[in-house]
Amino acid sequence: MKGITKRSEDYSRWYTDVVLRAEMADYSPVKGCMIIRPYGYAIWETIQRTLDAEIKATGHENAYFPLFIPESFLRKEADHVEGFAPECAVVTHGGGSELEEPLYVRPTSETIMYSMFAKWIHSYRDLPLLVNQWANVVRWEMRTRLFLRTTEFLWQEGHTAHATAEEAQEETLRMLEVYRRFVEEVLAIPVFVGEKSESERFAGAVNTYTIEAMMQDKRALQCGTSHNLGQNFSKPFEVSFQTRQGTLEYVWQTSWGVSTRLVGALVMAHGDDQGLVLPPRIAPISVVIVPIYRDLDMRAKVVAVAEKIKEAIGPDVAVKVDDRDEHTPGWKFNEWELKGVPIRIEIGPKDLERNQVVLVRRDTGEKTPVNRNLVPSRVPAVLDEMQHAIYERAKKFCDENTVDIDTLDDLVGRMEDGCFARCHWSGEREAEEKIKEKTKATLRVIPFDAAEEEGRCIVTGKPSKKRVIFAKAY
Amino acid sequence: MKGITKRSEDYSRWYTDVVLRAEMADYSPVKGCMIIRPYGYAIWETIQRTLDAEIKATGHENAYFPLFIPESFLRKEADHVEGFAPECAVVTHGGGSELEEPLYVRPTSETIMYSMFAKWIHSYRDLPLLVNQWANVVRWEMRTRLFLRTTEFLWQEGHTAHATAEEAQEETLRMLEVYRRFVEEVLAIPVFVGEKSESERFAGAVNTYTIEAMMQDKRALQCGTSHNLGQNFSKPFEVSFQTRQGTLEYVWQTSWGVSTRLVGALVMAHGDDQGLVLPPRIAPISVVIVPIYRDLDMRAKVVAVAEKIKEAIGPDVAVKVDDRDEHTPGWKFNEWELKGVPIRIEIGPKDLERNQVVLVRRDTGEKTPVNRNLVPSRVPAVLDEMQHAIYERAKKFCDENTVDIDTLDDLVGRMEDGCFARCHWSGEREAEEKIKEKTKATLRVIPFDAAEEEGRCIVTGKPSKKRVIFAKAY
Repeated sequence: MKGITKRSEDYSRWYTDVVLRAEMADYSPVKGCMIIRPYGYAIWETIQRTLDAEIKATGHENAYFPLFIPESFLRKEADHVEGFAPECAVVTHGGGSELEEPLYVRPTSETIMYSMFAKWIHSYRDLPLLVNQWANVVRWEMRTRLFLRTTEFLWQEGHTAHATAEEAQEETLRMLEVYRRFVEEVLAIPVFVGEKSESERFAGAVNTYTIEAMMQDKRALQCGTSHNLGQNFSKPFEVSFQTRQGTLEYVWQTSWGVSTRLVGALVMAHGDDQGLVLPPRIAPISVVIVPIYRDLDMRAKVVAVAEKIKEAIGPDVAVKVDDRDEHTPGWKFNEWELKGVPIRIEIGPKDLERNQVVLVRRDTGEKTPVNRNLVPSRVPAVLDEMQHAIYERAKKFCDENTVDIDTLDDLVGRMEDGCFARCHWSGEREAEEKIKEKTKATLRVIPFDAAEEEGRCIVTGKPSKKRVIFAKAY
Repeated sequence: MKGITKRSEDYSRWYTDVVLRAEMADYSPVKGCMIIRPYGYAIWETIQRTLDAEIKATGHENAYFPLFIPESFLRKEADHVEGFAPECAVVTHGGGSELEEPLYVRPTSETIMYSMFAKWIHSYRDLPLLVNQWANVVRWEMRTRLFLRTTEFLWQEGHTAHATAEEAQEETLRMLEVYRRFVEEVLAIPVFVGEKSESERFAGAVNTYTIEAMMQDKRALQCGTSHNLGQNFSKPFEVSFQTRQGTLEYVWQTSWGVSTRLVGALVMAHGDDQGLVLPPRIAPISVVIVPIYRDLDMRAKVVAVAEKIKEAIGPDVAVKVDDRDEHTPGWKFNEWELKGVPIRIEIGPKDLERNQVVLVRRDTGEKTPVNRNLVPSRVPAVLDEMQHAIYERAKKFCDENTVDIDTLDDLVGRMEDGCFARCHWSGEREAEEKIKEKTKATLRVIPFDAAEEEGRCIVTGKPSKKRVIFAKAY
C-alpha cells in the first residue's frame, strides 16, 4: 500500500508506517512521549475493558495512588532504587519554589503503595489485599518506538499482599495465566509462558514470570510479567500482620502488569503489507459496509440496504456503514484494510439485483458472495473463524521459527536472521552474558512446559536439565 | 455514628471523617496528593462509565496526550501561562541528567493538544475535531481537601475545534448541558447553570460556563465547566484550516472538564451524620442483604434465602449478601449506612416464618416489611423513589437557602451563616472584589434563567438587569 514500506524491505519502518498511517498514534513534541490517537486508544479501551473484567473476576479492586514518589521511598528497597532511579523523571520544583525533597514521577508504584499497605493491614483478616491500578508511568528512554517503548506509557499494575508465601506464589501464577489467556484468546497472539532468569528479573522481585511472543521479524516481545516479591518490600516498608496464632509476620507480596505495549504487539504479530490485521475480538470496528453507487438515486437505495443489513446484524457486532461521498469505494477499501477491520461488506447495484452482498475477509483477502438474508448468521461465524485463523497463523509462524540449537556457533549463525532458540543453559549469569555479547540475544523465558532432557549448556558445557529460550527482543 | 463528627458541630471535619471512615480515600505521604481507595474509586468508575457514554454519544473520541508539557508551549498563550505556570510541578531532571528545557506536569492540556491539532487539521473536512481525554493532572495546591482540592486529581478534558464561532458556542453549551443532566439526574445534585464573570474565567477562555451546586453548609461547589476558547489558542498554535471557499482561517475551540471533585460533591450534598447517602444511580452497591442468625443451622437457612433473593432481584441491580461471621448484624448495619448503600434488606428467623424481609431505606431510615415474593419488583421501585427523593431533598435545601439580597450590609450579615445570594451586580470587577473582601463570597454564576429585572448593583448602585449568584465556595 502507498506510504507503507514492505515488511520484507524494512520491518521496523513498516511498523512505524502502519502505526502512523492507520492513525493509531503520532509522535509528540515531548521527547520520547507519544500521542495515542482515537483509533489506537479504542484498541486500548477494549484491552482495558476486557482485562479489567478478568481482574475484578479474580477478586481485585481498582484504586488510585499518587503520581509522585518521594525520593526516600524509592530508596527503601536496594535493588528497586538501583533498577529504577536512573530512568526516572524528577520533579524538583512545585508551586513556584524548589521542593525540599525531589519527587520521582512513578516508574511503577510498589513503594508508594506499600507505604499505605502498612497503614491498612493489621491482622490476617485484612488479607489478602488485592488492588489494581490503571495509570500512566514514566521511564526515561533513550531509544523509543511507538507503543513498544515510550517514556510515558499507560498500564495496569496489580499489587497484592498475602498471609503466606504459597498464596503469593499462587496469585503470581494466577495473574500470569489471566494474561496468557487474554493475549492468546483475545489478541490471538501465541506466547511462551515461564520464568525469567535472575538477570532479567524485576528490580526487587524474588521471581519474575513472563509471557513472551514472537513478532514477524522473529524477535521476542515481552507481553506481560507477574512478580513474586516475597517479603522484599514488606520488610523495608514494614507491612506486617498479626497471624491467627497471634504472632507478627511480614506479608508476602506480588505485582503484575501489562501496558499499551500490547497495542504494538498486535500490530507486529498480525499486520501485513496492507496495514493492520485485527483479530475480531479486539477490533474497534468488526464490519465495515461500503455501498457502491454511481448516482444519487442509486446511492439512496444501496445506503438504505446497507443500514438494513447493519440493523439485521444487530448490536452485538460493531458495524460501520461508510457512506462518505468524498471518497471512492476503492479508496475506502484501502482505508479499512489499513485499519485492519476484519470484515468488509461491499454492496452495489448488481448485488441489489441478486439480493446478495460480497463479503471480504481482511486476513485472507477471500471474497465471497453471500445471500443478504444469510449475512446476520454468516458474520459472527466468519468473525469466529478469523479469530481462530489469525491465532493459528501466528502459532504456525512461531513454531516454524522456534528451533533447537546445541552450539554457540550455531546460535550466532541463526541469530543473524533471528529465531526463538531453544538451548541448554546451565543457569549461570556468565553464560547469558556471553550469548548476549555474541548474538545480542537474551534469555527470554525458561518455559514451564519444557520437557526434561539431559543436555549440556551451549556456553559452559555444564549439565543442564531443560532447554530455555534465547532471542533478540524488543 | 462513632468516629464521625456531627455536621452541626463541624461540617468540615464531618466531611473528612466520612471520606476516611467510609474508606473512600486516604491521605498520602506525598504532600497534597490523596489515595483513592476502592470504594471511592468504584464511584469514580461509575462516573467515568456513565459520562464516557454521553461524551461518545455526542460524537467525541477518546485519545491520550503526554503528561509533560514543554515550558515553551505553556508560554504561547499569555493568560494561560500566567494562570497556570505558578501552580505547576516542574520536571527538571530525566534519565539522570538535567533537561535542556523544563517539562511541566500538565495542569490541563490545551497547549500540548493544540500543537497536534495544528498538524492534523488542514481543511474544513477535518472539522469538527472532537477529542476527549481521561487523565491525571497536577496543580500545586497549598490548602488541600480530599477529593475537593488535591494537587493531583483525575478528570476528563474535552477539546474540540470547529469551523465557525457559532459551532464552538453550540458545543460549549452542549457539553455544559451534558454535565448538568449528569450531575442532576445521576448524582441527584441540583445545580445553577450559567456563565462565569470575567474574573472567574478559565485562563485563556473567551467565556466560561459553569454548573454550581450548594453543599449542606451552604457553600458553593463548582461541579463542571465548559469554555469557549474562541481563537485565543488557535492563533498562537497556528491551528488553521482551508475553508470551503478556499480561504485560510483559524479554528474556533472549546474545552470542558469534570473531575474527581464530583465524588466529594456527592458526599457533601447528600451525606448525613451516619455517613454517606448515595443516590442509587451512582452507588457501587445498591442493595445489601444482612442475614440474621444465632446458630450455624439457622445461618445456613437464612443465607440460602438471602442468596435466592439476590438471584430473584436479578443482575441489573448490584446486590451484596453480607454473610461475614466475624461481625454482628448491628455492626453491619452501621457499616453499610456509613457507606451509603441505598437499600438494606434484613432477614432473620422470624422473617423466614412469615415469608417476609425488612427493607430499610438509607435516606429516610424507613423500615418496611415486604413479602419475599414482592422483593424483586419492590427493589427497583424503591431505588427509583430514592433517586428522586434525594434530589428533591437537596433541591429544597438549595431553594430555601437561595435568597434575594439587595444591600451590601445585608450580604455581609447573611454570609456569616452562608447562602446563595441573588444580587444585582453592574458587571464591574471592582464590585466583585469589594464583595469578596467584605464577605469572602465570590460571584459563582450568572444564571441563564435569571429573570429580567430592573435593579441596582449592591456595591456601585449602578443599574443592573438581572441578579447573579454570590456565595462562599470550595
